[in-house]
Amino acid sequence: MRPIDPAALARDLDALAKIGVQPSGGITRLALTREDAAARDYVADRLRTLGCEARIDEIGNLRGRRAGLDARAPAVWTGSHLDSVPEGGRYDGAAGVVVGVAALQALADEPMRAPIEVVSFMGEEGSRFPRGTLGSAVVAGHVSMHEALALVDTDGVSVAQALAAHGGQRTIAAAARAGEIASYVELHVEQGGTLEAEKIAIGVVDTIAGLTQLIIRLQGEANHAGATPMNRRRDALAAAAEIVLAVERAAREVADRSVATVGDVHVEPGAYNIVPGRVELRVDMRAPSRDSLAAVEQRIRDAARDVGARRPIEISVERRQHVAPGPMSPKVMGAIENACRRAQRTYLQMPSGAVHDALHMADVAPTGMMFVPSVGGRSHCPEEATSVQDLAIGAEVLAWTLLELAS
Amino acid sequence: MRPIDPAALARDLDALAKIGVQPSGGITRLALTREDAAARDYVADRLRTLGCEARIDEIGNLRGRRAGLDARAPAVWTGSHLDSVPEGGRYDGAAGVVVGVAALQALADEPMRAPIEVVSFMGEEGSRFPRGTLGSAVVAGHVSMHEALALVDTDGVSVAQALAAHGGQRTIAAAARAGEIASYVELHVEQGGTLEAEKIAIGVVDTIAGLTQLIIRLQGEANHAGATPMNRRRDALAAAAEIVLAVERAAREVADRSVATVGDVHVEPGAYNIVPGRVELRVDMRAPSRDSLAAVEQRIRDAARDVGARRPIEISVERRQHVAPGPMSPKVMGAIENACRRAQRTYLQMPSGAVHDALHMADVAPTGMMFVPSVGGRSHCPEEATSVQDLAIGAEVLAWTLLELAS
Repeated sequence: MRPIDPAALARDLDALAKIGVQPSGGITRLALTREDAAARDYVADRLRTLGCEARIDEIGNLRGRRAGLDARAPAVWTGSHLDSVPEGGRYDGAAGVVVGVAALQALADEPMRAPIEVVSFMGEEGSRFPRGTLGSAVVAGHVSMHEALALVDTDGVSVAQALAAHGGQRTIAAAARAGEIASYVELHVEQGGTLEAEKIAIGVVDTIAGLTQLIIRLQGEANHAGATPMNRRRDALAAAAEIVLAVERAAREVADRSVATVGDVHVEPGAYNIVPGRVELRVDMRAPSRDSLAAVEQRIRDAARDVGARRPIEISVERRQHVAPGPMSPKVMGAIENACRRAQRTYLQMPSGAVHDALHMADVAPTGMMFVPSVGGRSHCPEEATSVQDLAIGAEVLAWTLLELAS
Repeated sequence: MRPIDPAALARDLDALAKIGVQPSGGITRLALTREDAAARDYVADRLRTLGCEARIDEIGNLRGRRAGLDARAPAVWTGSHLDSVPEGGRYDGAAGVVVGVAALQALADEPMRAPIEVVSFMGEEGSRFPRGTLGSAVVAGHVSMHEALALVDTDGVSVAQALAAHGGQRTIAAAARAGEIASYVELHVEQGGTLEAEKIAIGVVDTIAGLTQLIIRLQGEANHAGATPMNRRRDALAAAAEIVLAVERAAREVADRSVATVGDVHVEPGAYNIVPGRVELRVDMRAPSRDSLAAVEQRIRDAARDVGARRPIEISVERRQHVAPGPMSPKVMGAIENACRRAQRTYLQMPSGAVHDALHMADVAPTGMMFVPSVGGRSHCPEEATSVQDLAIGAEVLAWTLLELAS
């Protein structure tokens, strides 16, 4: 196997980091925008120079295929995504795609039985359309094309319209055919601080945490903040504050590596001198097991009911999204661990708190994920960082993993 | 004195309620907008038909002057404001102006020594520019024209620019000259439920509560909501929730009719799957005495310090606005009470929880306020209501009050 070329890796990352960069240094590359398409085109060109056939499927996933010795053998897939959150970092998603390209380059002289596909899934972040991991969900058959095309962003633009504008030439079907994919392995930045703190090169993901998102709506009564005595108020925000604290408490009490977050609050009417009449909370919770995830959600629902009983506020709790936890394939985990030993790199089994495209892929093919260290555990922000050295190590381990899976 | 004409009163209210009306039925008539100017023009026309000289001063206050027998006598002022909060009601402000017009009409045949001016102060609500009671603050010399003109709204439009666009023909100075104003009396809807509950016609305001507004900024660290364990978070919103509850608790503990409100919350970045990195709270507090107002503020500052000590969050507390409580003039209160007896109407002394233009006017002339009942205590919302009968009673009491003060 050829050695990984860190300079080429850095060049690819730098090129992508220029696409959608904001004054803050953060990257805003929302799904199916001009920026997202430019990043996809850059990677497609890179894949073509490596002799791959680069195509876009009907939902906008980029797939670059390197032929195998056995043209009929199921393909080994690797990759991640190129879209970002608003003001996000340069590694979340892009690292997995770029490292896939680097691994393919390292494997250029290795004859392998199975084809390899480097994939960039469309719309992983869910920052534009009201559903994340959209491209992989369609590949896995968890979301139909019909359903996916009808999703609309906050400006009322549908996925169908956005594909027409920025989806490129879409020439292949998205949904995976039975037996089409031999396995899927995704490299991603950890987005936590464990690998850095414990000085370990590679995290071998054993489970991807499940996810439940809730919208909690509180209806009180807007009124004059000066003229309404404290005992006559129906303040939706004071009630919401109790729920925000209950969300934090729920994850701490359930433990088992579960997390829960109120990521956003909307207040109406929203002025200094008006008692808030309506509040909306956006809640996200994750846990590695179904039981823990359900326990966190139940505690939050109980708290909402309790607040609604104690305060003159109507509270509704609605599920926005639910994804069950996904255990990773022992076969792919084993291949990653073999690769670490071969490359003489340390590794650690760990769960993924974040949802990734691998969660959907696990339903259609043996799937594994590897993490590389995140500086300070930061992600989804301009400060997100992973060193080129650590990414080159990841690329080497990925290359050995692909070699085992495709042989 | 001529009897009050309830039909004319209702016509004026209906006419004003059409200007800036929203689909919700609420009224959005922000200071120095097209809608605000249209309301001002309507009232100016009404005043001119009553023989008044209607002029606009340099900060945009409308002043309609009815001559007195003694041209040099200081004028008795009455009025309120025509601007509204976003989606506000049809009585807050407009009632005091319209009732002023009705009182003037009732007094048409009464010879009076002093001139009477019906005033509509510019920008009472502070919903557009970052300071309320702006027109009266300039009249009272509490804010200079220089300072007032430089204030900008959230779109970056200054008061100077808004005056040029919608301020009309401004022909007189704003700041009151010494001895120019004999007294000021303002009728306003109560915005609380006391008069309605106790079936009393007129509230005679003894004190206007003081006001302090704070901006509380919390700086944590934005991070991935799935990948960041609970014990490694710097969640600015969870910390803010503790402060929201402390604000509510502060007013309840200090009591003395004090109130405190978090009216708005801004979260950054503001997405389901990102731990909030930055939060801004907009806090408003009122109390009828300096001591109580200071005690509420101190409790909130202590709570912010405590939260900042317990959580890894940087918290800053900044005063946005402070107005000391304003006791009303015994002379004007006496005139209102005499008028109530003359009109055979019940009355009750009470504080005003809301700040009004009368708070500034109290520094330049003996000042009083009278309240009329609010249905259900609702205000700053589309449901705000006061019956025409109650307003006609208010107009009659106001007319008798003006007659005493101007004789």
